[in-house]
Amino acid sequence: MARQVFYISDGTAITAEVFGHAVLSQFPLEFNALTIPFVETVEKAHEVVADINESFITTGERPLVFHSIVSPEIRDVIYGSEGLDHDFLNTFVAPLEQQLGVSAKPVMHRTHSIANETYDGRIEAIHYALDNDDGQTLKNFDKADLILLGVSRCGKTPSSLYLSMQFGIKVANYPFVEDDMDNLKLPPALQAQKHKLFGLTINPARLHEIRQNRMNNSRYSSMRQCRTEVQEVEMMYKKLRIPYVDTTNKSVEEIATKILAETGLERHMF
Amino acid sequence: MARQVFYISDGTAITAEVFGHAVLSQFPLEFNALTIPFVETVEKAHEVVADINESFITTGERPLVFHSIVSPEIRDVIYGSEGLDHDFLNTFVAPLEQQLGVSAKPVMHRTHSIANETYDGRIEAIHYALDNDDGQTLKNFDKADLILLGVSRCGKTPSSLYLSMQFGIKVANYPFVEDDMDNLKLPPALQAQKHKLFGLTINPARLHEIRQNRMNNSRYSSMRQCRTEVQEVEMMYKKLRIPYVDTTNKSVEEIATKILAETGLERHMF
Repeated sequence: MARQVFYISDGTAITAEVFGHAVLSQFPLEFNALTIPFVETVEKAHEVVADINESFITTGERPLVFHSIVSPEIRDVIYGSEGLDHDFLNTFVAPLEQQLGVSAKPVMHRTHSIANETYDGRIEAIHYALDNDDGQTLKNFDKADLILLGVSRCGKTPSSLYLSMQFGIKVANYPFVEDDMDNLKLPPALQAQKHKLFGLTINPARLHEIRQNRMNNSRYSSMRQCRTEVQEVEMMYKKLRIPYVDTTNKSVEEIATKILAETGLERHMF
Repeated sequence: MARQVFYISDGTAITAEVFGHAVLSQFPLEFNALTIPFVETVEKAHEVVADINESFITTGERPLVFHSIVSPEIRDVIYGSEGLDHDFLNTFVAPLEQQLGVSAKPVMHRTHSIANETYDGRIEAIHYALDNDDGQTLKNFDKADLILLGVSRCGKTPSSLYLSMQFGIKVANYPFVEDDMDNLKLPPALQAQKHKLFGLTINPARLHEIRQNRMNNSRYSSMRQCRTEVQEVEMMYKKLRIPYVDTTNKSVEEIATKILAETGLERHMF
């Protein structure tokens, strides 16, 4: 039976979830996770404790309680539950206060910066990615920080969006399609920005699987077409010395961070 | 002078960054962060330790080292640096082994699931969000988990993309524009999906600021137009009992998690 886990925060609980997920994924067990964000009042905190205690009674097992709570008052209420506490934030704050010689000044909602200047940069990057997706226009490549290339369905759009959303990077992307394959080359708009180009490739069998889901039993999705396209594009990457990464079996996070690591573009957390 | 911080991982380092950021944002200090992902070999780990030690020599201050490293061998190398260690993963793994009565089985890259079934669901959600953005088509609302409404530039697109990318939720969005304002009502395609509707609103002054950046000194961006549109749309939300949230001064994370909390849609981490 799956072990019950609670992720609790006085904010969005994203930090608690990301971290709890990372820790629990090291264990070969099933977990049933419930996320409770915005626990901003003592009253709500008591309701949460009641839920945790009820879970203990119902299942007979103490639930795991991962919390990332800024307010000491609310944290104290949560400590009082029958669950097994794992205090993400506080475990590290006290040692850091010693090391930095400065007291923490707990302020809720500071984790995701909404200072308008940096935030607008992020929204701008998202809109840039959307407006310059899939070779819709070739006019704005001069404004790009990065331009992703690759065959249809190899992961260009999700990677562009992730990079823009998480890191505020302006990413355009450009597809190589069936008709390009006989004489595959970079259009002038891309040649002019060669230093910004980064290629994606993919295992042809995986591409075939993905394309079958989109357009079953078409030439577009045939193994032969997938193999041809991947081979031609990889040959071009090598010939033109365009760095590239294989997206097969990689999550969007892994693809995006690999690209950043290889290009040296900066990662700014928001 | 800003304190040097290193985020180190044998994976994408996203967990280390998100968590380090949350912890450090509690302190009223400037930090200069460097993220080093994919430290997958002992050799690379030694190079990182050299960088950390050099930072100590250069700045005279021990850098903070936040690491989320699965491999015990690589972790041991990193422990040997002159920096101040904060071991995100291991601090919680040992107590959990006791509580769960099970040993951790450290496997790299498990944090972001790439099991094809769940992963394809996420990519599908991203493509759904893109294809059904901004009222481009009214034909697929039956497939949506959620449909966001609101005036132009109140945050519908970034919120839709974030929800699809982070949680695999299918989100369409629909804009109310200037011409709608005289007789504002829901088109039939939206009326048919009323239970899926969720509204966004925004402070008119903030909307004005955002629109000025996009199209300066136009009627679209005038305070009067912004005020009118916001008022009309909020009146409609109230009249039709459509739940809504104010996006002013909220990050995409906060908007998205607020929507999920209010609608009760499930958050599945990937």
